[in-house]
Amino acid sequence: MKVGIIGGGAVGLFFAASLSQWFPVTVFTRTQEQAHTIQTKGIKVEEAGELSVRFPEAAPMDQFSRHAMDCIFIAVKQYQLPAILERLKESSLSPALIFLQNGMSHLTVLKTLPHQHLYVAAVEHGVLKSDTADIHVRGRGQTKIAVFRGDERAISAIVEQAAPSFPFEWKADYESMLLGKMAANSVINPLTAVLRVTNGELISNPYYLKMAKTIYREFSSVFANKLSAGAWEEIVHICRKTAPNRSSMLKDIESKRPTEVDAILGYVLSQAAEKDLKLPALQALYYMIKGLEYKEAE
Amino acid sequence: MKVGIIGGGAVGLFFAASLSQWFPVTVFTRTQEQAHTIQTKGIKVEEAGELSVRFPEAAPMDQFSRHAMDCIFIAVKQYQLPAILERLKESSLSPALIFLQNGMSHLTVLKTLPHQHLYVAAVEHGVLKSDTADIHVRGRGQTKIAVFRGDERAISAIVEQAAPSFPFEWKADYESMLLGKMAANSVINPLTAVLRVTNGELISNPYYLKMAKTIYREFSSVFANKLSAGAWEEIVHICRKTAPNRSSMLKDIESKRPTEVDAILGYVLSQAAEKDLKLPALQALYYMIKGLEYKEAE
Repeated sequence: MKVGIIGGGAVGLFFAASLSQWFPVTVFTRTQEQAHTIQTKGIKVEEAGELSVRFPEAAPMDQFSRHAMDCIFIAVKQYQLPAILERLKESSLSPALIFLQNGMSHLTVLKTLPHQHLYVAAVEHGVLKSDTADIHVRGRGQTKIAVFRGDERAISAIVEQAAPSFPFEWKADYESMLLGKMAANSVINPLTAVLRVTNGELISNPYYLKMAKTIYREFSSVFANKLSAGAWEEIVHICRKTAPNRSSMLKDIESKRPTEVDAILGYVLSQAAEKDLKLPALQALYYMIKGLEYKEAE
Repeated sequence: MKVGIIGGGAVGLFFAASLSQWFPVTVFTRTQEQAHTIQTKGIKVEEAGELSVRFPEAAPMDQFSRHAMDCIFIAVKQYQLPAILERLKESSLSPALIFLQNGMSHLTVLKTLPHQHLYVAAVEHGVLKSDTADIHVRGRGQTKIAVFRGDERAISAIVEQAAPSFPFEWKADYESMLLGKMAANSVINPLTAVLRVTNGELISNPYYLKMAKTIYREFSSVFANKLSAGAWEEIVHICRKTAPNRSSMLKDIESKRPTEVDAILGYVLSQAAEKDLKLPALQALYYMIKGLEYKEAE
């Protein structure tokens, strides 16, 4: 089973390092330089004070369609996805594809792919990238995964082999699976980025907690029937469990990188518009993040 | 005509320095130390590169009721007002009182005062306090003033004498006068404080401008019939004219001082609640400022 991973961010590197224990893995990176570093020095994984090094193959991203793969994990951000999807459509190969993106805005384009087996996943590992090919595993969780098209068999070998040290959990309904993660991302990510606070402060500061609840209420008004009953408690739980962490969107803003706000709040607002619903506080939060991005971009 | 000024902030010092050219003025300060500095070294006023020094009388605030005054300008912030009002009620003297506060939440308590002549004013000078008794006049504007109770005569000597170098402009309707200023304060102050930007960025960044317009729309839904037609254009004009300035609320947040958010957004929200109106974006902004204050206070 040949495994490809597109994207050399924290998640891509963690998947490459982990799966290369059992399968031949090639990780496709945006830069030639990163591919070279992985080839020569490997991926360094720090976890609970211990360091290990893994040596998957690595190549620049624009070459991925030349490699025959049985399955490909796509670990780029939403806004980097269109270019990858174009290449996937052009290729004559038809690997199983597993999409690891946050948000749900990729779901509509997934339908246009010719591939027989498509999966979406919600990654719950806490991983930071500390250097070109170095990652720090802060919290090992699991990867929730659901069939988008086809069936479980095309990647069941991976799911079975990787458990229990790198667990996957099959979910029956991809939509409610992604919605749960999206609710958390819609509340925690933009608020921590605008207010420049840790995840824990969102619930320890009573005014921020009210603000978080307001955003959650507007979110749930759009997806009420699909959202699980414990979604709000799950968000509070995540904030508590990851209290000292800075969210990915806060880190993006601080590092002047583009954020995933369009894939998260932008998607929620587009769904609300289709249902003729107004989400004034969430809309305001969207403008604030877009304004911060605009400022950083100037 | 004996003039008292309660409050040794930028506005109080500017009024004291200016009016002491024509009237015997006593400025009442929160600290003994500031009163001493004013008594011994005067108030230093820097304007357009020129420095002048004025020598009004000065005394600690808790002594103001011992001094017989013809009129008193009250230049403390909204949240410092209750203590002053208690003293004013206890005093047997009945000077004309001119309230210089932002916002409108003081209007209800004003009704409980026994004084014959009450005025409210909207100060449009741009003044910064640079040291204990030093101010920097960045933009000389005017003071809009309106009768709250009584008539114009009790302070007409001041208004006439001070023009044209320190102009007052009489307004017929105190409510729409204060509303215009409050609209600007509701939009510019909290947004610049949360986003940590200058007044100019609010209109040069297209996303912040949308956010500002959203807040303005919610504000105007509460006061539609009282708000002048050009109120939004006036806000844009203020942002353009004071583009490099940091708003007073932003400075309060940066200096970890309490802000005037309750007198501004808190008042708007209470008025909206009375009319059963929801202002979700403005409410969210209120929570964010309260959260910032809570954080600074911790």
